[in-house]
Amino acid sequence: MFGKCIGNVRINAPLVHNITNYVTVNDVANILLACGSSPIMADEPEDAEEITAICKGLNINIGTLNKRTIEGMFRAGRRSEELRHVLLLDPVGAGASALRTNTAVRLMEELSFDAIRGNISEIKTLAYGSGTTKGVDADVEDAVTEENLDSGVRFAKEFAKKAGCIAAVTGAIDLVSDGESCYIIRNGRQEMGKITGTGCQLSGMMTAFLAANPKEKLKAAAAAVCAMGLAGEIAWDRMQEGDGNAAYRNRIIDAVYHMDADILEEGAKYEVR
Amino acid sequence: MFGKCIGNVRINAPLVHNITNYVTVNDVANILLACGSSPIMADEPEDAEEITAICKGLNINIGTLNKRTIEGMFRAGRRSEELRHVLLLDPVGAGASALRTNTAVRLMEELSFDAIRGNISEIKTLAYGSGTTKGVDADVEDAVTEENLDSGVRFAKEFAKKAGCIAAVTGAIDLVSDGESCYIIRNGRQEMGKITGTGCQLSGMMTAFLAANPKEKLKAAAAAVCAMGLAGEIAWDRMQEGDGNAAYRNRIIDAVYHMDADILEEGAKYEVR
Amino acid sequence: MFGKCIGNVRINAPLVHNITNYVTVNDVANILLACGSSPIMADEPEDAEEITAICKGLNINIGTLNKRTIEGMFRAGRRSEELRHVLLLDPVGAGASALRTNTAVRLMEELSFDAIRGNISEIKTLAYGSGTTKGVDADVEDAVTEENLDSGVRFAKEFAKKAGCIAAVTGAIDLVSDGESCYIIRNGRQEMGKITGTGCQLSGMMTAFLAANPKEKLKAAAAAVCAMGLAGEIAWDRMQEGDGNAAYRNRIIDAVYHMDADILEEGAKYEVR
Repeated sequence: MFGKCIGNVRINAPLVHNITNYVTVNDVANILLACGSSPIMADEPEDAEEITAICKGLNINIGTLNKRTIEGMFRAGRRSEELRHVLLLDPVGAGASALRTNTAVRLMEELSFDAIRGNISEIKTLAYGSGTTKGVDADVEDAVTEENLDSGVRFAKEFAKKAGCIAAVTGAIDLVSDGESCYIIRNGRQEMGKITGTGCQLSGMMTAFLAANPKEKLKAAAAAVCAMGLAGEIAWDRMQEGDGNAAYRNRIIDAVYHMDADILEEGAKYEVR
Repeated sequence: MFGKCIGNVRINAPLVHNITNYVTVNDVANILLACGSSPIMADEPEDAEEITAICKGLNINIGTLNKRTIEGMFRAGRRSEELRHVLLLDPVGAGASALRTNTAVRLMEELSFDAIRGNISEIKTLAYGSGTTKGVDADVEDAVTEENLDSGVRFAKEFAKKAGCIAAVTGAIDLVSDGESCYIIRNGRQEMGKITGTGCQLSGMMTAFLAANPKEKLKAAAAAVCAMGLAGEIAWDRMQEGDGNAAYRNRIIDAVYHMDADILEEGAKYEVR
Repeated sequence: MFGKCIGNVRINAPLVHNITNYVTVNDVANILLACGSSPIMADEPEDAEEITAICKGLNINIGTLNKRTIEGMFRAGRRSEELRHVLLLDPVGAGASALRTNTAVRLMEELSFDAIRGNISEIKTLAYGSGTTKGVDADVEDAVTEENLDSGVRFAKEFAKKAGCIAAVTGAIDLVSDGESCYIIRNGRQEMGKITGTGCQLSGMMTAFLAANPKEKLKAAAAAVCAMGLAGEIAWDRMQEGDGNAAYRNRIIDAVYHMDADILEEGAKYEVR
């Protein structure tokens, strides 16, 4: 099932517009190419509005935002919405500053996203208006664990329902819900947290998966989460003595590059509630 | 012949100023270091104008452009021209948006470039005023192939003549012309298209090659194209099982790092028409 | 002694705010994660001011500065100072342009830094008001060598005393002084100069070391310099045939990832004068 989702990315090769932070942008571009999509980046408002029109999806990531790029997010976002393109929000650091929280909240209010992907602290900030985000990482106390899984699933469903879109809450255990059902995903490794931008990369890739699978968006979003986590597992198996987080970053992108329908189908670890 | 061109880069170690996009900037810097040049980046108008004065060449790449950096491109460009430094334009995404097309056209009108390097769709946009660019990649229908090579060569020559500078149209087959003769280059691998920024990297490196070989600019530009393509071939031979586009990116830069006059001389695949 | 410094980074995991250039920012983020710290980047003035409040240290790097980010540096810097956080300046390219020199000088005048880290040409520019910086690299004539070591040590001490903070002058031989004593460090390899951003990475890591070792700042700064140089040595030993500066960049970050107290303790090469 998920195999078909990545297959469609490779067949349709959707062009994805990314307004994203300058920290991890190169990795976002390379992972989009790795999964069969094409990336384009543009953040100047008038350019962003026009560039998004030739794409199939828009990934808005608020890390290293500024007033100019925020305007770019809104203008490109509105255009993307008019054209019924896929629209995804990655609220990096929501809860860590007023500008980030307010920008994310305003984006949610003014645009109709297909999906919002963030860590649990960021999503809690969007749900409750204030958060306990530790910088750009989730607060340990917020973490979704096997012990509090039921309440995590409930939260993801309620947030998705309220937001009117797919909610992808990623961490040690990932939750992807459309408000009705919730995928609980157990792919991935904790060492992925030692690489900057695995979340940003997933957001880019999820946008591509949604754009290539417009009729099965919940599955597509869950498939992207599984693909990223599975790439983390495959990449870890290829680590050599002395390899650290820089090698791991490269190996994860490489694992996505080689991931086909069968690999994803067999490696995906999830249940639906 | 091309061997001497890369040898001169290593001997002269030209300082190259890059006003370039934030997606691929790190790779541009590392490939410039790999080939024996030194990179410096500055895009704030007053800073760019002053920084360019201490360099030997300026590489203007319009990816992720904004109003502030566009002003930086013009101010640094004029200064660079006054000082008779090497000046190169990479019209990333010309044809994909009005801002990009117009900026590239205005830059060409107001500045005297030594070289313009882009994919066929970008260059056609500059030649005919409108293009069919698919984002930042060339349109498949535009591609230079063995079948349409004659008309491709004619186009490259005419564009170079009209633009008054070297035209480097890169793709599966690369064309480098000064309006009189045209190098047809068959180095490279198609998998390079799966890495973000190989074109940007080539533009940076071409600026260094031009700056280090001021009396043989056409050869220098063609040598840079061969060097990049050859690095792609050498790097591919070093790929290990499981390696993908992230490893390939690193291996290409590493191949440039080890490329000397003999390697380039022996590996360059070109003819002149 | 230095072992405890890196141990404290891993135990305390300080959140470090970086206002840094877009060329090397991804490597700065990954090396901070590698050493046990967490990075966050924010440069929009109001965001930077607020983000810095949740961090333990602020690393101000003036590469690719612009008017907006300069305001961000001052506002975040003042806030960081009020909160008595660690504050570090990396004057990238001071001496290469008036904007860079003046910004670095003004930052020094208006803020109380804990440490300033730069190459010898940048630091001489700050000491004497004008410099001979060759772009972002040190001028060869300025280099600290075994022959001029005494005057180099004297210079580092005097600069540190005048600046009222730790001075880290890095190059083939590194000098780290608080005005009273001076660490002379002989870790590292010259090939590190062929990678973009090893200096930027060190500045990020030094901020983390200072934040995690508030009572032993001189030792912490010297330990960070040793750790970076030692990582360059360990990484070099892991280089394989055909590896170049791209592989080396990754391997250095990986060496930091695996560096523990014992490795640093045994590998550090320094004397104190």
